[in-house]
Amino acid sequence: MLNITQLTQNILQGNRVALARGITLIESNKPDHFETAQKVLERLLPHSGNAVRIGISGAPGAGKSTFIEALGLHLIDRGHRVAVLAIDPSSQRSGGSILGDKTRMEQLARREEAFIRPSASGGALGGVARKTRESIILCEAAGYDVVLVETMGVGQGEYAVRSMVDVFLLLQIAGAGDTLQGIKRGIMEIADIFIINKADGENKTRAETARSELNMALRYMPNDLPDWKPPVLTASALEKKGIQSVWQHINNYLQQVEKHIGLKERRKQQDIQWMYDVLDQEIRRLLYTQPDIKHKIRENETAIRAGHISPAHAAAQILKFIRKVFKEDAV
Amino acid sequence: MLNITQLTQNILQGNRVALARGITLIESNKPDHFETAQKVLERLLPHSGNAVRIGISGAPGAGKSTFIEALGLHLIDRGHRVAVLAIDPSSQRSGGSILGDKTRMEQLARREEAFIRPSASGGALGGVARKTRESIILCEAAGYDVVLVETMGVGQGEYAVRSMVDVFLLLQIAGAGDTLQGIKRGIMEIADIFIINKADGENKTRAETARSELNMALRYMPNDLPDWKPPVLTASALEKKGIQSVWQHINNYLQQVEKHIGLKERRKQQDIQWMYDVLDQEIRRLLYTQPDIKHKIRENETAIRAGHISPAHAAAQILKFIRKVFKEDAV
Repeated sequence: MLNITQLTQNILQGNRVALARGITLIESNKPDHFETAQKVLERLLPHSGNAVRIGISGAPGAGKSTFIEALGLHLIDRGHRVAVLAIDPSSQRSGGSILGDKTRMEQLARREEAFIRPSASGGALGGVARKTRESIILCEAAGYDVVLVETMGVGQGEYAVRSMVDVFLLLQIAGAGDTLQGIKRGIMEIADIFIINKADGENKTRAETARSELNMALRYMPNDLPDWKPPVLTASALEKKGIQSVWQHINNYLQQVEKHIGLKERRKQQDIQWMYDVLDQEIRRLLYTQPDIKHKIRENETAIRAGHISPAHAAAQILKFIRKVFKEDAV
Repeated sequence: MLNITQLTQNILQGNRVALARGITLIESNKPDHFETAQKVLERLLPHSGNAVRIGISGAPGAGKSTFIEALGLHLIDRGHRVAVLAIDPSSQRSGGSILGDKTRMEQLARREEAFIRPSASGGALGGVARKTRESIILCEAAGYDVVLVETMGVGQGEYAVRSMVDVFLLLQIAGAGDTLQGIKRGIMEIADIFIINKADGENKTRAETARSELNMALRYMPNDLPDWKPPVLTASALEKKGIQSVWQHINNYLQQVEKHIGLKERRKQQDIQWMYDVLDQEIRRLLYTQPDIKHKIRENETAIRAGHISPAHAAAQILKFIRKVFKEDAV
């Protein structure tokens, strides 16, 4: 039996083993663990919120790990404590990847001031995204003042991450021609800062070209923040160049958020939006998996395909049926 | 009392008064009109599907009306019959705008082969978008083989329109610098063909510049269709230049859709997706407006704001409450 008080105290004292255990509890898919995890979480909530929450995405090969490691080490050298969380909604990885992630960021993993945690697997109530959101709280309560959330850059996860961080970075590399081919639609629109990574050696010129091309493309890309024009920076994680500039721009962006919305206010808005998202998702699951309703929906899909019914009429029929199912036997 | 058989027969014969009456029936917000409208619609469904469905968007001032008129007249001169529907989710306009729209497209409105219908107002079950979707069916049944759906270019409506048309055009004009400033995020991503309008007189050079800039921006913009690279065309609705080229590119695009998905198959997918969208929307309305549930949600929002509860936990509490409400007294 877990001692909740002990666990929260240990986390608050910055105990890494306790933090890891807390996250494991949050990541658990066992229903009775959910309530316990929420109790831990709610005791820690008042002690959270003191980190800069940074989302980082980029297609495979963009050098995310190396970049995160370079940024992490840079910040630790300046007195910060850095937590790295990974999110990958498509992933079914479990224990094995911990080693994988630690190997990926070997130098960072060795530092006392760093905490690295790979992606959790899915589950109910918001799945892996919920777990990452709540892990951020735990990391903050444990005293980490920078939380880096890494996503895979293949879509899906990016929107979820955008909704839980303060600033979202997109890593690119200069390629021959269409550099962003691997990026799913919409990702560019949620990025606040762009970084052309691997701007080193003979790649430098190409990085500068990519930078000006990206700048051109961004002229037509609106940002959530009215006055913010997402900058395109070049960096070399390998040569540790441009890292301080990235940090500087992150802070510039946060100042703008503070000025226009307020960082705390925006986090509250993110939380409430998230509550609705989870609620919608769960209600859909609740309704659409009920066997009779599921059957009714299939029936109407077939009728739509055959051109016997309009989509709105089908929706009306299903809705009527859902009400009937509820009246006869509550779901 | 409306005679359904008579009305559908008259619409099938291409009777414009009957078509207008049918659309009015579909647009009605009276609950008992819904069933009647669906009956009419379902009799006409087998006779629909024979038009090219074209969505057209663009910020105010891009010259949408003039362009639609030029395209419409061009197609009528080549033997087509053209229906124009407008969609504006934010609009509360009613009868008055009919005159407005006809004045906007004076020449087109005078043609026997054209049918112009302004935006309907909102209401339940998918609102104005539902009404436009169903109006398309009626126009097709009445023998119009080109249906142009115009949106306001201010967000929202564009996604709904994208889901009911075969091809989506975005009208731009060359401006000083950031031409697309007025365009809400995401709209550029759903466009299949871009048109720099008003490429006439001393505007020509600027239109060419805008064209190459837009081309640059589009290098990073993926399209739904894997092999389709959205072209940027220039046109002058005023001088009736570039109109045939637009029509040519529309047909090129449709060929690609046919090759990759099949036009009919894609329409069926659009319809089924639409059914789910409406269903989700109606379920949300059903649940979130129930007074006790509404109160519970407010309560949890406050708790989230105060940092007393996690969003996922709040969602779980609300969900439990919704189940309870249902068990005690069906919604």
